[in-house]
Amino acid sequence: MKKITCMGFKAAGVPAGLKKNGQKDLGLIFAEHPAQVAAVFTRNKVKAAPVHLSMDRIQQGTCRAIIANSGNANCCTGEQGMRDALAMTRAVALDLGIAETDVLAASTGVIGAPLPVAKIETAIPELTRALTAEGFDDFAEAIMTTDTVPKIVHGEDQIHGSPYRIIGIAKGAGMIAPDMATMLCFICTDADIPHRGLKGLLSASVEKSLNRIVIDGDTSTNDVAFIMASGTSSAKFEDAESMHAFQNQLDHVLKTLAKMLVKDGEGVTKCVDVVIQGAASEPQALAIANTIATSPLVKTALFGEDANWGRLIAAAGRSQVPLEPEKIDIYFDDVRMVKNGLGCGTGAESLASDVLKKPEFTITMNLNCGTESASVLTCDFSIDYIKINADYRS
Amino acid sequence: MKKITCMGFKAAGVPAGLKKNGQKDLGLIFAEHPAQVAAVFTRNKVKAAPVHLSMDRIQQGTCRAIIANSGNANCCTGEQGMRDALAMTRAVALDLGIAETDVLAASTGVIGAPLPVAKIETAIPELTRALTAEGFDDFAEAIMTTDTVPKIVHGEDQIHGSPYRIIGIAKGAGMIAPDMATMLCFICTDADIPHRGLKGLLSASVEKSLNRIVIDGDTSTNDVAFIMASGTSSAKFEDAESMHAFQNQLDHVLKTLAKMLVKDGEGVTKCVDVVIQGAASEPQALAIANTIATSPLVKTALFGEDANWGRLIAAAGRSQVPLEPEKIDIYFDDVRMVKNGLGCGTGAESLASDVLKKPEFTITMNLNCGTESASVLTCDFSIDYIKINADYRS
Repeated sequence: MKKITCMGFKAAGVPAGLKKNGQKDLGLIFAEHPAQVAAVFTRNKVKAAPVHLSMDRIQQGTCRAIIANSGNANCCTGEQGMRDALAMTRAVALDLGIAETDVLAASTGVIGAPLPVAKIETAIPELTRALTAEGFDDFAEAIMTTDTVPKIVHGEDQIHGSPYRIIGIAKGAGMIAPDMATMLCFICTDADIPHRGLKGLLSASVEKSLNRIVIDGDTSTNDVAFIMASGTSSAKFEDAESMHAFQNQLDHVLKTLAKMLVKDGEGVTKCVDVVIQGAASEPQALAIANTIATSPLVKTALFGEDANWGRLIAAAGRSQVPLEPEKIDIYFDDVRMVKNGLGCGTGAESLASDVLKKPEFTITMNLNCGTESASVLTCDFSIDYIKINADYRS
Repeated sequence: MKKITCMGFKAAGVPAGLKKNGQKDLGLIFAEHPAQVAAVFTRNKVKAAPVHLSMDRIQQGTCRAIIANSGNANCCTGEQGMRDALAMTRAVALDLGIAETDVLAASTGVIGAPLPVAKIETAIPELTRALTAEGFDDFAEAIMTTDTVPKIVHGEDQIHGSPYRIIGIAKGAGMIAPDMATMLCFICTDADIPHRGLKGLLSASVEKSLNRIVIDGDTSTNDVAFIMASGTSSAKFEDAESMHAFQNQLDHVLKTLAKMLVKDGEGVTKCVDVVIQGAASEPQALAIANTIATSPLVKTALFGEDANWGRLIAAAGRSQVPLEPEKIDIYFDDVRMVKNGLGCGTGAESLASDVLKKPEFTITMNLNCGTESASVLTCDFSIDYIKINADYRS
């Protein structure tokens, strides 16, 4: 299989000894020339040291490299944590001969443990030597925590006859909620787009993808989605039409990554699209979708393959959105299970049970109170989710 | 053991065939003379038929009986559901020779299935015959769903030399969140208190007890806490001092019941008091306590007996309350695990691990940003919680 590349970028991933199992845990993306950069960061009031560092440095609009580690979040680590984050970026800068302020950082893993920064500094020469145009797969492996598969997506299109590429890489299998970029995500493109445009494009895509997935409703302290544009391709984005085309490509990459995250969520056996239709407003539709998507009772019923629609209505009812229960229709894929707030009987229940056996399906709730809609991608709560999270640090 | 009684009341519980296992599922509390009555009801926008019925009838301030069934919630059952709820109360009224409007109703169980009201009507003669002053234990059994033990609490005190009693009975092991009376709860007292006073007393106690517990963060469609006062004892409550004394007794009964509910929560192995101190305001302290108490990552760590304080701080951070992470102290019972936002090292971790092995303990987070505090009682998320809720309807 041809390796994924993106003009103007190199990447790498190596083991630095942060993970107990000896797997890759240190990654680097390097831009051969200053790249335009933008990002969205976690809204959690508690932010990890590398988040603070990157929020500060991203103001300049360009960067040369992003270093990322798994195995340790470098969060709740105080002033030493910030010194360690700075040291990571300094070591990269020295080794690559670039300015320290042109290096951004991201960390993911256990909160509250000191970062073993010496191990990282020791591994950086090997990491920079490993940089190649085809190193994105290694980078994707290096940022995994409880993920069971690396997540990498490639998009390619052309504008005014000039081809350009987008690579998206993400990690995250728990502590995921619909509140900002709830994972680590790195987007590289060789398109030529100034950083001010990038921020808007990224925010719009994140709102439709990474902010529309739920694994457990917890928001991480370390989340960030970066986008870097090298401008190395001849694809220039200067008019509204071309920007719109790029937005569509970026949407595709981020929505695909978002779905990969949910499908690989901790202990997940079901990936379910919760669609709310017929709402009076889009925020109301979204509020109900999020309440259903985070309800432990809904998620355990999904795990049990139980078409327990009463829990769907109960969750909608506690979302504090005004609704008329006697108007609600509910579908599992195209099987109507509830009509006007009442169950459609054992025939429908039997058909719905078949839908619930599938690994992916859609639950549609029509409120019949308006014309607005919203959807959220969620998963089930399984026995393995509990096992994984009960033993995470040990 | 002496059976619990409360002057002026009789109670009973019998099997009516609503539960598949032949256990008691139909209960009745009867006041020999019109009792003063008040209640707090679920804030879920979707309310079961018996909730609508009781909300309507409670306006009159007095009642003679409350009939309650388990095994079926009579919710999302449309007009037929309301006819069935009315039929339950009519059958009780006819059999006891009292006015139909003097009978309140409560149901708990599966949502969306038609109420098998014929079984209830058939069982009502046996139920009324079973009424005795010592029947509260049977009533407590009859309202159980996934509860593994009946919950009944007895308080006794005197005012101005006159003794009075309070009996509290509750059920609920899932779909429990800190948003109104999140379970069925029945309080009887032989004290002489008018219904207007009762409502205030009940609301104040519920706010400190039933509204301060979390099992899974879901709010039921059927929740209600009733209080009935027979006035049969000679204990009159007319002055502020005596009302205050009654409030203390009622607080004791409801807090004890609330703790019993959490300890018997679905799959629960840990009962944990989450205390937030040093907040700028009580609502802010409560918001953080609730976010921690409902976090799946916190609750799975509790199940795993893992002193994962990073998840506590991350949950506090996403509660949207302004806070300074570098000021936070965290204790597991009296073991200080975090000082000024930083871990206290392996010694503290080892001591905290011992605390986490206990079935009950306290997590205290001091924000060191003010003088206000709040606490919420929560539990862990265990493998059995998933199993119970994946298979609930089958």
